[in-house]
Amino acid sequence: MAKIKRICTLLLRLIAFGTTLAAAIVMATSHETSSFFAVSFEAKYSDTPAFKYFVIANAIASVYGFLVLFLPSDSLLWRLVVAMDVVVTMLLTSSVSAALAIGQVGKKGNSNAGWLPICGQVPKYCNQVTGALAAGFVAVITYAVLLLYAIHAVLNPLLVQKT
Amino acid sequence: MAKIKRICTLLLRLIAFGTTLAAAIVMATSHETSSFFAVSFEAKYSDTPAFKYFVIANAIASVYGFLVLFLPSDSLLWRLVVAMDVVVTMLLTSSVSAALAIGQVGKKGNSNAGWLPICGQVPKYCNQVTGALAAGFVAVITYAVLLLYAIHAVLNPLLVQKT
Repeated sequence: MAKIKRICTLLLRLIAFGTTLAAAIVMATSHETSSFFAVSFEAKYSDTPAFKYFVIANAIASVYGFLVLFLPSDSLLWRLVVAMDVVVTMLLTSSVSAALAIGQVGKKGNSNAGWLPICGQVPKYCNQVTGALAAGFVAVITYAVLLLYAIHAVLNPLLVQKT
Repeated sequence: MAKIKRICTLLLRLIAFGTTLAAAIVMATSHETSSFFAVSFEAKYSDTPAFKYFVIANAIASVYGFLVLFLPSDSLLWRLVVAMDVVVTMLLTSSVSAALAIGQVGKKGNSNAGWLPICGQVPKYCNQVTGALAAGFVAVITYAVLLLYAIHAVLNPLLVQKT
């Protein structure tokens, strides 16, 4: 039983590492040059502070996720990992939702503020950003499951069985 | 010692309840009418999906924060509260950073996407949104402290002293 749990946790951590790495890479490589009449126009992630933050946050999370994979299962550092998971989950959540908010304006625009959608001009860039956001979203869900599972594992056994 | 801890936790929960309520109210009441040449122009929070999400998330968090204040200190539901805190913290984090990302575009604009800043036209609205974001930010920090404290309280005593 304990072995199955450990494999499940390891699998979730692998997914978390993979998705954060993928999100950072896909977002960082997103750029497209489009010419509108005579004006050449390049869209890339570093134009938008929220997308830069997304890349940085996902890079940090993937480094953290990589290091945790090599932590021995009887290490006392696992207690610290739960607290670190909280911090990383908050970091990822904020980066994904900031990028999502900007992406929504890019896709739909905001007529009240006079901001026009730009996805029509740079569809490839837009799709790549959407892909990065999807990967980031999966990473957030994975970390949330890991965190809730850790809390469940720590808090419930105290009630039911001996340590 | 246990009493001091309980008072600290209660105080933090009071702050969390107050700031989420304030954030929701300040954001929900933010609107300004400005006339630009002959065109009348009204800015309000419901124009922007991210700000609507901010109001809803903070309203949910303040209802939750209000209910938790009345939980007796020996209730077994406190175990559930830690898990609920994770969910509420993620909800607040995402709402604050989505609203912050849009607010940043409103303040500075984004020249690459052709989005102009709107704070010059509606300064009062802008300031009110900034106030709501500040309150929301304090709420996120408070919930993060509560969460890390709960994890510290649950995980450390297992190592040092008997339950």
